[in-house]
Amino acid sequence: MKILIINGPNLNLLGKREPEVYGHTDFETCLAELRAEFGDVVIDYFQSNIEGEIIDTVQRADGACDGIVLNAGGYTHTSVSIADAVAAVAVPVVEVHISNIFAREAFRHVSLLAPVCRGSIAGFGLDGYRLALLSFLK
Amino acid sequence: MKILIINGPNLNLLGKREPEVYGHTDFETCLAELRAEFGDVVIDYFQSNIEGEIIDTVQRADGACDGIVLNAGGYTHTSVSIADAVAAVAVPVVEVHISNIFAREAFRHVSLLAPVCRGSIAGFGLDGYRLALLSFLK
Amino acid sequence: MKILIINGPNLNLLGKREPEVYGHTDFETCLAELRAEFGDVVIDYFQSNIEGEIIDTVQRADGACDGIVLNAGGYTHTSVSIADAVAAVAVPVVEVHISNIFAREAFRHVSLLAPVCRGSIAGFGLDGYRLALLSFLK
Amino acid sequence: MKILIINGPNLNLLGKREPEVYGHTDFETCLAELRAEFGDVVIDYFQSNIEGEIIDTVQRADGACDGIVLNAGGYTHTSVSIADAVAAVAVPVVEVHISNIFAREAFRHVSLLAPVCRGSIAGFGLDGYRLALLSFLK
Amino acid sequence: MKILIINGPNLNLLGKREPEVYGHTDFETCLAELRAEFGDVVIDYFQSNIEGEIIDTVQRADGACDGIVLNAGGYTHTSVSIADAVAAVAVPVVEVHISNIFAREAFRHVSLLAPVCRGSIAGFGLDGYRLALLSFLK
Amino acid sequence: MKILIINGPNLNLLGKREPEVYGHTDFETCLAELRAEFGDVVIDYFQSNIEGEIIDTVQRADGACDGIVLNAGGYTHTSVSIADAVAAVAVPVVEVHISNIFAREAFRHVSLLAPVCRGSIAGFGLDGYRLALLSFLK
Amino acid sequence: MKILIINGPNLNLLGKREPEVYGHTDFETCLAELRAEFGDVVIDYFQSNIEGEIIDTVQRADGACDGIVLNAGGYTHTSVSIADAVAAVAVPVVEVHISNIFAREAFRHVSLLAPVCRGSIAGFGLDGYRLALLSFLK
Amino acid sequence: MKILIINGPNLNLLGKREPEVYGHTDFETCLAELRAEFGDVVIDYFQSNIEGEIIDTVQRADGACDGIVLNAGGYTHTSVSIADAVAAVAVPVVEVHISNIFAREAFRHVSLLAPVCRGSIAGFGLDGYRLALLSFLK
Amino acid sequence: MKILIINGPNLNLLGKREPEVYGHTDFETCLAELRAEFGDVVIDYFQSNIEGEIIDTVQRADGACDGIVLNAGGYTHTSVSIADAVAAVAVPVVEVHISNIFAREAFRHVSLLAPVCRGSIAGFGLDGYRLALLSFLK
Amino acid sequence: MKILIINGPNLNLLGKREPEVYGHTDFETCLAELRAEFGDVVIDYFQSNIEGEIIDTVQRADGACDGIVLNAGGYTHTSVSIADAVAAVAVPVVEVHISNIFAREAFRHVSLLAPVCRGSIAGFGLDGYRLALLSFLK
Amino acid sequence: MKILIINGPNLNLLGKREPEVYGHTDFETCLAELRAEFGDVVIDYFQSNIEGEIIDTVQRADGACDGIVLNAGGYTHTSVSIADAVAAVAVPVVEVHISNIFAREAFRHVSLLAPVCRGSIAGFGLDGYRLALLSFLK
Amino acid sequence: MKILIINGPNLNLLGKREPEVYGHTDFETCLAELRAEFGDVVIDYFQSNIEGEIIDTVQRADGACDGIVLNAGGYTHTSVSIADAVAAVAVPVVEVHISNIFAREAFRHVSLLAPVCRGSIAGFGLDGYRLALLSFLK
Repeated sequence: MKILIINGPNLNLLGKREPEVYGHTDFETCLAELRAEFGDVVIDYFQSNIEGEIIDTVQRADGACDGIVLNAGGYTHTSVSIADAVAAVAVPVVEVHISNIFAREAFRHVSLLAPVCRGSIAGFGLDGYRLALLSFLK
Repeated sequence: MKILIINGPNLNLLGKREPEVYGHTDFETCLAELRAEFGDVVIDYFQSNIEGEIIDTVQRADGACDGIVLNAGGYTHTSVSIADAVAAVAVPVVEVHISNIFAREAFRHVSLLAPVCRGSIAGFGLDGYRLALLSFLK
Repeated sequence: MKILIINGPNLNLLGKREPEVYGHTDFETCLAELRAEFGDVVIDYFQSNIEGEIIDTVQRADGACDGIVLNAGGYTHTSVSIADAVAAVAVPVVEVHISNIFAREAFRHVSLLAPVCRGSIAGFGLDGYRLALLSFLK
Repeated sequence: MKILIINGPNLNLLGKREPEVYGHTDFETCLAELRAEFGDVVIDYFQSNIEGEIIDTVQRADGACDGIVLNAGGYTHTSVSIADAVAAVAVPVVEVHISNIFAREAFRHVSLLAPVCRGSIAGFGLDGYRLALLSFLK
Repeated sequence: MKILIINGPNLNLLGKREPEVYGHTDFETCLAELRAEFGDVVIDYFQSNIEGEIIDTVQRADGACDGIVLNAGGYTHTSVSIADAVAAVAVPVVEVHISNIFAREAFRHVSLLAPVCRGSIAGFGLDGYRLALLSFLK
Repeated sequence: MKILIINGPNLNLLGKREPEVYGHTDFETCLAELRAEFGDVVIDYFQSNIEGEIIDTVQRADGACDGIVLNAGGYTHTSVSIADAVAAVAVPVVEVHISNIFAREAFRHVSLLAPVCRGSIAGFGLDGYRLALLSFLK
Repeated sequence: MKILIINGPNLNLLGKREPEVYGHTDFETCLAELRAEFGDVVIDYFQSNIEGEIIDTVQRADGACDGIVLNAGGYTHTSVSIADAVAAVAVPVVEVHISNIFAREAFRHVSLLAPVCRGSIAGFGLDGYRLALLSFLK
Repeated sequence: MKILIINGPNLNLLGKREPEVYGHTDFETCLAELRAEFGDVVIDYFQSNIEGEIIDTVQRADGACDGIVLNAGGYTHTSVSIADAVAAVAVPVVEVHISNIFAREAFRHVSLLAPVCRGSIAGFGLDGYRLALLSFLK
Repeated sequence: MKILIINGPNLNLLGKREPEVYGHTDFETCLAELRAEFGDVVIDYFQSNIEGEIIDTVQRADGACDGIVLNAGGYTHTSVSIADAVAAVAVPVVEVHISNIFAREAFRHVSLLAPVCRGSIAGFGLDGYRLALLSFLK
Repeated sequence: MKILIINGPNLNLLGKREPEVYGHTDFETCLAELRAEFGDVVIDYFQSNIEGEIIDTVQRADGACDGIVLNAGGYTHTSVSIADAVAAVAVPVVEVHISNIFAREAFRHVSLLAPVCRGSIAGFGLDGYRLALLSFLK
Repeated sequence: MKILIINGPNLNLLGKREPEVYGHTDFETCLAELRAEFGDVVIDYFQSNIEGEIIDTVQRADGACDGIVLNAGGYTHTSVSIADAVAAVAVPVVEVHISNIFAREAFRHVSLLAPVCRGSIAGFGLDGYRLALLSFLK
Repeated sequence: MKILIINGPNLNLLGKREPEVYGHTDFETCLAELRAEFGDVVIDYFQSNIEGEIIDTVQRADGACDGIVLNAGGYTHTSVSIADAVAAVAVPVVEVHISNIFAREAFRHVSLLAPVCRGSIAGFGLDGYRLALLSFLK
C-alpha cells in the first residue's frame, strides 16, 4: 500500500509557527514516526505553498498511489480548484486538520474540500495523520 | 481504559434506515467488533432519542470514564444544550459522524458540538467509531 | 386501515391555549368526531411534549400503521431529529398545522418536517386533521 | 355551492410537463373526476399564464362564488400583486400545490400567497384539489 | 405568594461547571439563601435537562403558583416549544440568566423566550434569581 | 400640459379594498376632483392588472405627454421590467403610493421603481396624486 | 396655520455642498420663496447638526405648531432616537429629501423615520419642501 | 432548421433606449442581417412585454421549431414562471443578453432562466443573437 | 452609596409618550419613590437627548459614584460611542429598559450596550429602575 | 488574427475528469478541430493549474494577440487577482465555461471574471470555444 | 501649513482608558511631541464627544486649514452625517485609528468615513497621527 | 535597518495599468526615490503574481529583515494562506494599498491580511510606501 501525504501552505513551519495552536513537533519528526509505525505502507510526502502545485500533485497521484492524506492549510477554506482536482481523481482523499478548525475563526469553519473527500479528521493535532492512515488500513 | 459511546436520535435504526447513506450494519454488530478489536478497553454504550438523556449521560460520565465517543445525530446541528454539557465536563469527547455531513444538506454542515469536542471524525461510515477509539489510544 | 395521529408540544392545551389562534375545541372532542366520521379507520393517538418521545413513536409506528398524521407543534421549526425519523421510516407521514403558520411570526414560516413528509396541510384549524385523514383514503 | 379553481402558468401542460414531478394526468381528466365526485358543487375553472388575468379573475370571483382553489404555479413565489388581490377580496381562497414545494429548489419554499389564504395544501399531487374542495364542505 | 423556579439543562452542575463563567456556588446554597431572605414566599424548585419536562412543568404551574422564574439554559436559544408553553399559560414568567449572555458567543445573544416573558434579567450571577423574586414583590 | 396617471394591479378596487389601508374613495371620484382642480391640465388615466400592459403604456406615453404619475401597486416591489421601461423613456415619471409603504410589511419597503423615477411620494392617501401633479406645475 | 421646518446635519451647506446632488440654491432663498408663496402660513425654521437638538425641537413643537417638515439629513438612516421622538409627539411630521435617496448609495435607501411619519417626499430637489407644505393645506 | 427568437420587455425599443447600453441598431435591422447570413434557417420572431405571452410562446414552440433564442429582458431576473416553461418544453433554449449583465446592477447578475437553458451568451451586443444561432448549427 | 441614573432620548416624555408602551408615570414621580424607598442611597439623575452629553456624563461619573443605572433609550441600539464610554470607565453600569425590547420591533432586539454592562434588566416597566438599584445593594 | 486560449486548473484533465459534466473529448482534439476550422487564425494555447501563471500569461498577451479566450476553471469563482489582470490589459477577453455553471453548485453561479470580460459564454460544452472564436470574427 | 486634528468620543480619556488597547500616553503629550517635531506646521486640536460638534468643526475647517486628521472614535462606524460633512468640504481629510480596528470586534471593521477620506491609517498607536501629518508633507 | 517590500499580483504593471486608479509612476521609479530618501535603510524588493511565492518570501524574511511592507494586491481580499504566513512569522508586517480600497468595489473593502498586520495604510497612492517605511523609523 502506498499513501501520499500532501501538506499545504505554512505547514513547512510546523513546530515553529504558533506552537500554542499547532504544537512543537515539526512534520519531519511526525513523518518518521508514521513510517516507523506503518512499516508496510510506503508513505510519500509533498509540501508546497503554491495552490497549483497541490493541484498538480493530486492529479499525478491518481493511479500512482492508494490514497491521499491532504491537509491543504489555508487553501482548505478558499480553493474551489483544489476541490475540483480532488473530485476529478479516482484515488480516495482524506482531509486532516491539526487544530480544531471549528473552534477557531469563523472563516475556518467551512472546508471547500470536505464535501469531495472520503472523510475528514480535525482537532487531534499531528495524531490526525496517524488516524487518516489507519482509515486506509481497515 | 474505559470509553463510553453515546449515540443520539435515530441511530438505533442503523442498518435499517436509509442504508444508502448509513450502510447495512446495525450498531450492535459494530459494537461487538469494536469490543473484539479493543480487548483492553471497556466500551460502554448508550443510545437515546431524547436530548436531555444525552445531557444526563454526558454529565454522569464525567469522572467515570476516560473518554466519550459522541454521535449526536440530528441534535449535532441544533443542540446548544448538549454542547454546553460537553463543555461543562472534564472528560474528553470525540465527535463521530457516519456519513460525510459536509456533502449533504446545508443544515448538516454546521456542528454545534465540534467547537467543544477534542476532535471530529466524519465520513468513514461505522469505521469512524474505530478511529475515534484509536484517538484515545495514542 | 390504521392511522396514528401524533401531536407535539403544547397541543395538549388545545381549547385552553390562545383560543384566538387555536380555537376553543380540545383535541379529545376533535378525536371523537374523527372516529365517528371515519368508522372504518382505526385512529390511534399520541401526544408528548418531549421531542425524543415523538421520535420513538414515529419509529415504532413503522410497519404498525398505514399512515401518520403529525402536528409537531414548535418542534416543526427546530427538530432535525424528528425530520430524520420521518425520513427513516417507510410509513407515509402527513404534516398538519392548525393555524396558518405562514401568516404568523417569521420563525414559523419554515418547517423542517415538510420536505420529508408526503404532504402538508396548514391553516384549516382542527379541520386539517380531517383533511389529512381524507388524504389517506383516496 | 360554487367553487372556482384557478390554475396559473404552465399548469395547462399538466400530464405532459415533467411527469416525474407533476404526474401523468392532465387537468381536464382531474376536473371531470372532481365534478363527478362533488355533484352538488358547481366547479368553475380558469387557467392563464398571465399574472394580471389571474388578478382579474380573483377580483371578479368576489361575490360570485363561495370559494377559490388557487394554484398560482410559479407566480406563487414572485407575485405580490396576486397576493394583494387575494387579500382584497372577501371570498376565501385555498392554496394548492401539486408537488411538495418544500422538498424542491429553495426559491419554491416561500409562498407569497400563503399568508393571505385561508389554508395551504401541498404535496398530494392532483389529489390536493379534492382536499381543497373538501375543506369548503365542512 | 408562591413562586416556582425552573432551571434548565446543565444548571444542575452550578458551582462545578465553568466556574469562571457561572461562579462557585451550587444552586442548592442559593436556594437556601433565597428561602431565608424571602420567608413569606413559598419557593418551589424544578430542574431538568429534558426540554419537554420543562414544558410539562410550565404547563402544570399555570394556576398553581403566582409566578415562574425561568432559566432555560441552552434551550433559551433554541426552543420554540418552551416559548410556546410560556405564551400559552397565564402565570407570569420572568427570565433569568446568570452570565451576561450578550457578552458571550453570538448564538447566546438571542433568547426565543424573552419576547413572551414579562421581563428579562441577565448578567448578575446568582443574584439574578433574587432580583427576579423581588420583581414579583412590588 | 398633459399628464398620464397609471394605476397598477388592484387599484381598480380602491374604495372597496381594505379601506382601513386605502380609504373609502374610489379612484374615479379622485380623478374627477383632480380634473376640477387642475383645469389647465389634460389628465389621462390608465389602469391595468397586467404588468406588460403597464410597460406598453409607459412606452407609448413617451413623447405623447409631459409627465407620468405612476402607482404600480404590487409591481412596485417586483418588476424590473417596468423599471426598465421607466428608465428607457424620456418623459419624467413620479411615483405615488397611497399608503405609507415604509410602515407596512418588509417586502413593501423597497421600490424597484424609485431609483429611476424623478421623485417619490408616499403615505398621503389619495392626496398623493394631487401632490404629484403639483410637482409638474412648478 | 403654523409649520416648523427642521433641517438636519450639513443642510446648512445647501448651495455650497455637492451642488450636482443638492443644487445651487441655499435654504434661506428657498425659505423666503416659501414664505412668499404661502402668505397665510407661519413658517418657522430650525437647523442643527446635533441629533439631540433635533429631538429637543421635535418635542417642543408638539402642541406649538400644526405640522413639521423634517429633512433629517444623514440622521435619516441612523437615528432610532429621532424616530422615537417623531412617534412620541402628536403633531404630524412629513419627511422630505432633496435628492432621490433611492438612486444613491445603498445605505441611503432605508429611512428609519419614514415608518413613523405621515408621508415621505423624495427626489424633487428643494421643491419637495413646497410639496410638503401643500400636503398640510388640503 | 427553424429557430424562434423571443425578445422580452422593452426590447422593442432597441436602438432608441439607452443606446450607450444597448447600441443604436433596432432589432428589425439585426433580424434582417441574421436572415441574410443564415439563409438555410427559418428564423421566426416574437416580442412581448407581457410575461404570460412569453410563456404561451415558449409552450407553443415546443415541437414546432428546433430551438429558441430567448432574451427575456427584465423578466430574466424575476420570472420563475418563464423558467418553469423553459424547463417544461423539450425544445432547447439558448439565453442571450445584449449587455454584460454581470457588469451592471447587482439585481441583474442572477438569471432565473440560465439554470434551465442549454447555454447562456452575454455581453456581445446584438452579435449575441448570431452566436446563439451558430450554437444550433454545429 | 451613591448611584447615578442616566436617562437617554425621549425619556423626558415618560408618562406622556405612548403610555400603552411606557406607562402613565413620569420619571420625577418614579425618582421620588426610589429616593423614599432607598433612604441610604444618594440617587443622582441626569437626562439628555444628546448622545455626546450622555458620554460626557458617563465619563464624569467614573470615581464620583458607586454605580450607574443607564437607560439610553434609542441610543441603546445605535451608539458604539456610549458603549465605548461604558467600557472605558471603572464604575459598574446596569442597563435598564422599561418595555420588553425583545417583544418590539426587530431593531430594538439588539443592545450595543449590553455586552459592556454588568447586567441588563428589561420589561418590568419603571420597576426596572428599583431592581437595578437593588442589584447594587447585595 | 491571433487568439490565445487560456485554460485554468484541472482543464488538462478534460476527457478524463467527470465526463458526465465535461464530456469525453480532451482539449488537444478540440484545439485541432478549432485550428482546422479557423485556418486564418493563429490560435495559441496555454494551460496552468497555477493562478499566478495565468495572471502572467494574461499580462504578456497584452499587445501580443488580438483576443483571449479564457476558461479559468475553479479560479473563475475565487480570483480577484485574475480579474484585476483582465481589467488591466487592453486586449479583449471572452470568458468560456464548458458546463452550465448556473445549473451547478451555488458557489459556481458567480464569476468574478465576467464583469471585466467583453462577454461570457457558458453551457455549450467544448463548442463554447468555437463560439468565443466566432465572437472575434464579426 | 495648518493642520487640524479632530478627536471624537472617548479619545479625551487616552492614557487612562483601556491602556492595553490604546496605550498609556495621553493626547496632550502626543500633541506636544507632534508640535515639536513639525515646527513649520500649525497644528490645531479639537475634541468632542458630540457628533454634531464634530460636523460643525469639519465644516468650519473648510478654507481655514490645509488638512484635517480625523479620528472619529466610535462615530467612525455609525455616522453617515460626519461622512456627509467630510464629503461636503474641499479640505482633504485623513482618517487615523490608534488600534488595529480590523483585529477587533466585527462592528469596528467597517468605517463609514474611509470611503470619503483621502486615506486611512490604522494600527500604529499614537504614531498614526505622525504618519497622517507626514502624508500632508510630501 | 533592513526592510523588504513585497508587491503582489499585477503591481508589476504599475504606471501602465488603470493609471486613473493607480497613477502613472512605475514601481521602479518609486523604489529609487525611497532608496534615495531613506539612505540608512536597506530596502529589498520582491514582486510575484503567484500567491505561494509571496508566502515563501514572507517565511524567508523572518529573521532576515526588520520589517515587511506588503501590498498583496488582489490576494488581499482572498488569501487566508498569506494571512496565515504573516501570523506565523515574528517580523512585523505593514499593509499598504495604493488606492483607497474602501471607496471601490465592495469586495475590496475587506482585507484578510489587515487583522494580522501591525498596521494598515490605504489611499495615499505610492506615497503609502513612504509612510509605511516611516512607521518603522519611529
